[in-house]
Amino acid sequence: KKVHEKMQGVSRRLRKSPYPLIAMDQALASVMDKIAPLPSTERPVNEALIGSVLDEDVVAVEAVPGYRAAILDGYAVIDTDGPGEYPVTAVSIATASYETPAKLLPGQIARITTGGALPEGATAVVMVEDTLLVKSSEDDTKEEIVEIRAKVRNGEAVREIGSDVKIGQIVLKKGQVISAVGGEIGVLASIGVGKVVVKQRPVVGFLSTGNEVVNHDNGQPLKMGQIRDSNRPTLIAATKAAGFDYLDLGIAPDSPEDLEAAVKNGLDKCEIVVTTGGVSMGEMDLLKPILEQKLGATIHFGRIMMKPGKPTTFATVPHPRGGQQPRLVFGLPGNPVSATVTFHLFVLPALRKLAGYEKYMWPSIQAEITHDIRLDERPEYQRAIVAVTNEGKIQAQSTDRNQMSSRMVTMLGANSLLVLPGRTAERANVASGDKVECLLIGKIV
Amino acid sequence: KKVHEKMQGVSRRLRKSPYPLIAMDQALASVMDKIAPLPSTERPVNEALIGSVLDEDVVAVEAVPGYRAAILDGYAVIDTDGPGEYPVTAVSIATASYETPAKLLPGQIARITTGGALPEGATAVVMVEDTLLVKSSEDDTKEEIVEIRAKVRNGEAVREIGSDVKIGQIVLKKGQVISAVGGEIGVLASIGVGKVVVKQRPVVGFLSTGNEVVNHDNGQPLKMGQIRDSNRPTLIAATKAAGFDYLDLGIAPDSPEDLEAAVKNGLDKCEIVVTTGGVSMGEMDLLKPILEQKLGATIHFGRIMMKPGKPTTFATVPHPRGGQQPRLVFGLPGNPVSATVTFHLFVLPALRKLAGYEKYMWPSIQAEITHDIRLDERPEYQRAIVAVTNEGKIQAQSTDRNQMSSRMVTMLGANSLLVLPGRTAERANVASGDKVECLLIGKIV
Ligand code: NWS
Ligand code: NWS
Repeated sequence: KKVHEKMQGVSRRLRKSPYPLIAMDQALASVMDKIAPLPSTERPVNEALIGSVLDEDVVAVEAVPGYRAAILDGYAVIDTDGPGEYPVTAVSIATASYETPAKLLPGQIARITTGGALPEGATAVVMVEDTLLVKSSEDDTKEEIVEIRAKVRNGEAVREIGSDVKIGQIVLKKGQVISAVGGEIGVLASIGVGKVVVKQRPVVGFLSTGNEVVNHDNGQPLKMGQIRDSNRPTLIAATKAAGFDYLDLGIAPDSPEDLEAAVKNGLDKCEIVVTTGGVSMGEMDLLKPILEQKLGATIHFGRIMMKPGKPTTFATVPHPRGGQQPRLVFGLPGNPVSATVTFHLFVLPALRKLAGYEKYMWPSIQAEITHDIRLDERPEYQRAIVAVTNEGKIQAQSTDRNQMSSRMVTMLGANSLLVLPGRTAERANVASGDKVECLLIGKIV
Repeated sequence: KKVHEKMQGVSRRLRKSPYPLIAMDQALASVMDKIAPLPSTERPVNEALIGSVLDEDVVAVEAVPGYRAAILDGYAVIDTDGPGEYPVTAVSIATASYETPAKLLPGQIARITTGGALPEGATAVVMVEDTLLVKSSEDDTKEEIVEIRAKVRNGEAVREIGSDVKIGQIVLKKGQVISAVGGEIGVLASIGVGKVVVKQRPVVGFLSTGNEVVNHDNGQPLKMGQIRDSNRPTLIAATKAAGFDYLDLGIAPDSPEDLEAAVKNGLDKCEIVVTTGGVSMGEMDLLKPILEQKLGATIHFGRIMMKPGKPTTFATVPHPRGGQQPRLVFGLPGNPVSATVTFHLFVLPALRKLAGYEKYMWPSIQAEITHDIRLDERPEYQRAIVAVTNEGKIQAQSTDRNQMSSRMVTMLGANSLLVLPGRTAERANVASGDKVECLLIGKIV
C-alpha cells in the first residue's frame, strides 16, 4: 500500500524522470556484465537438444563404421585375384549376424550388401552391376559361380573401421551449439553417445501490465479505453521460434499488490522476467518502485537514448533461493513495437548468454539502404527487410515510412532492424545507397 | 511372403537397376506435380501459428487504437489555449473506465497517462516534463492548477482512432506465412481476431529400415554388423527445427511383413512417409517391391543422377481413406549424409508445398567459392558454410574435402549445400573465386 500512497501524493510526484538517459552500448554492457552462463546438465541425444550448447568435448566411444563395411551391393573379393569366375562361398547381408563372416580365401568371393560386414581376408567389393551369374544351385536359392568382370583396387568400395569417426576422436567441442540442420544430432547418434553435457537452458517469463490490457482472445468486444494484449503473444512467439523455453505470466493490473505478486511468481520460476508497460512517467507506472522497494531489486538503468525503447528498464534481483546468480528483470515499454524491438535487442542476447552461447550478441550484416532516411535525434532501430539481389548485393529497405512505436504493422515482413545513428550537426540523413548496419531478427534468404 | 521368395530366386535377381537414372530437375518436377496444398482449417491466434500460411485475407474487425489515445504521460489540452496556468478537471489514466472521459472545455486541462483515452474536445497532449504543479488539494491527492509550459500543435501526442489499423483494413493477405519474428502474431492479436483460416499442416513420418539398424540410445554396445540409427534423430531434428509436425515410426527390420506393416501404419497417419535405407541393389532392398506389389503405390522414380542420393525413390499411394490427394513416400538412401541431403532437397519443399507455401522451393544464393573443387560425374550437393565477409562478399567453403556420403561429420557446421554441376568434357573443375549456387539449409548469419 505504501508505494501506492506515496505515488498518490501529487505534489511529490516527479515531473522529470529520475533516470539518466544512457547510451545503448552502455546499457547493453550493463546487462551482459550481470550474466554468467548457467550451470551444466546431462541431456539425452534427441531433437530437444537443438539450440543447446555443449559444455564438454564429445569423444567418440565407438568407431564409425565399427566393422569393415561394404559401400556397394555386390561381392567381397581379394583384389589381387582379378576378374574371372569364382565360387560364392558366403553371403554377408547387412544385418546383425553377431559374428565376423567366415574368412575369404584366395580364389573365393562372398555375396555382400551395402553396409554388410566384409569377410576376413576380403580387400575390396565389386558392385553387382559388374558381375554375371554363371551357375546357381538346383533349387535356385544359392549363387554358386559368379563372374567378376571388373578389376578393383585394394580397399575399393570398403569403409575401414573408424574411417568416418575414430574411437577417442573429439567429434564436437565444448561451446559448440547443436544446430537446427541436424548434423550434430546425427553425429552424436552415430557414435553411441546416449547423453551429453550441455548448459542448462534459461526460462523467460512474460508479464503484461496495465488495467487497460485484456487477453487478446477473450472473445469480448473491447470496452472504452481497453486494448488487447498483443505483447505477450508476440514475445512468446518470438521466444518459441528462437527455441527458448518460456512461461506465460499473464496480465497484472496496475495495483501494487497484484504487480508485486505477479513479478515475484515470475522471479521464482524464471531466470528472466520480462514485463511490458508501466515504465514511463505515469502515476500507474509502478514497476520501478515495486522492484526497488518491495523486491530488493537493483535498477541498473531506467532510460536509454534509443528509439523505440526509451523507457527500457533493467534490474537484477537476488535469486529467491540464494547462491546462484541474480534473476534478471527487463521492464520493456508497453508500446508493441518498442517491446518487440527491445526484446530482440536485449532479451534474446541475454537468453543466449545464459544458455552458454559464445556469440550471444546480435547477428548483423552491412546492407545498402534503398531510400533516404531522416535521422532521429535518438539512435533508431527501424524495422526493415534485408534481401540479396541477383547480383549478390545485400540491400535493406524499411518496412514502412511511418515507424511509430505503436504501429505493429511496421513489424510485418521485417527480418532485420536497421541500426541508425542519432542525428548530429554534421549528419542529418542517411542517403539511398549508403551502407547501414542491419541486425538480423529473421532469415535474410 | 511372395515378395521375399521372388527376391530369393537368385537367377531372377536383377544385376542392373531397372530404374532409369533421371535428372534432378525432372525428379523435382515429378514430386511437385503430385502435390497440392492441403485444405484449410481455423486456428486460434497464438505461437502455434508460426510457419502457417493464411488461407484468407485477414480484415481488422477493430480499429487500433479503438479510442483517441495519449502517446505521452501529461495533460490533455486544447492546443489553441496555449501555455499558461489551467485547472485540472479530470484524470484519464490508461484503464478500462468504460466511458469516454468528460468533455474538456476551453481553459481546462485533464491529467492523462500514456495509452489513456482523451477527453472529448481535447486536441493534443502536453508531456508532464513540460508542466509544473502550481497548486494541489489540501490533502495532496489532487492536482488543482498546473502550468502548461509548452506550445503544442493540434493532434500532437495523440493517436487518432484507427491511425495504426483501420476497421475493415486488410492487415494480412491470403498466402502470407506467419513468421517467427512475431509481427504477424502481434498484429493479429491487436485487432481482435481470435481465429484465422490457415492451411492445414502436413505430418511427416520417419521410418528407418534394416536388420542392422538399432536405436541409437539403446544403451547396449554394438554387436558385429550393427549400426546405430542416426537417420531418424537427424531428420526429426531438422523437421522440428523447420517447424513441421512429425511422427516417429521406429525401425522396420528387413522382413516384407514388418516393412509393409510399418509403411502402412505411416501412410495411415502421415501425409508423407520417409523411409531410409533399403533402396539400392541388395536382396534386402525390399521397399520398392513392397510399395508396388503390396501397397498399390506408383513409383515415379527410383534413381536420380545426383551425388549423394542416387537411389532416392519417390512413390505415391492412394489415400487410405479415399478422396483426398495421394500419400507421398520418399524412400531415401540409408547413408546418413544421403538421407539428410535428400531430405532437405525433396522432403522439406514437399512439406512446404503441402502447407501452402507459395515459395516452397529451396532458398538459394550465389556465393564465391574459396577453393577449387573437382566436379563429380554426377551433379553434386556438397555440404558447405556460407558466410558474409566484412566487405559484404558472400563466400562459400566446403565443410570437408572428403564428402563421402557415409561421413556425417561433413554435415557439421554446414548451413548450405553447394549445387555443383556434373563434370563435362569442357568443365572438370570449379575454381576458387567462381560463383556457385548455394542452397540454404541453415542461417547464413
Ligand atoms: N511524459 C512522458 N511520457 C512518455 C514518455 C516520456 O519520456 N515522457 N515516453 C514515452 C515512450 S517513448 Mo518509446 O519505446 O521510445 O516509443 S515507449 C514510451 C511509453 C512507454 O510507456 P510504458 O509505461 O512502458 O507503457 P504503458 O503501460 O504506458 O503503455 C504504453 C502504450 O502501450 C500500450 N500497451 C501496453 N501494454 C500493452 C500490451 N500488452 N499489448 C499491447 N499494447 C500495450 C498501451 O496501451 C499504451 O498505448 O511511454 C511514453 N510516455
Ligand atoms: N551395386 C550397387 N550398390 C549400391 C549402389 C549402386 O548403384 N549399385 N548405390 C549405392 C548408393 S549411392 Mo548414394 O546416396 O549417391 O551415396 S546411397 C547408396 C546406397 C544406398 O543404399 P540403401 O539401400 O538406401 O541403404 P542400405 O540400407 O543399404 O544402407 C546404406 C548404408 O547406410 C547405413 N544406414 C542405413 N540405415 C541407417 C540409419 N538409419 N542410420 C544410419 N545409417 C544407416 C547402412 O548401414 C549402410 O552403410 O547403396 C549403395 N549401393
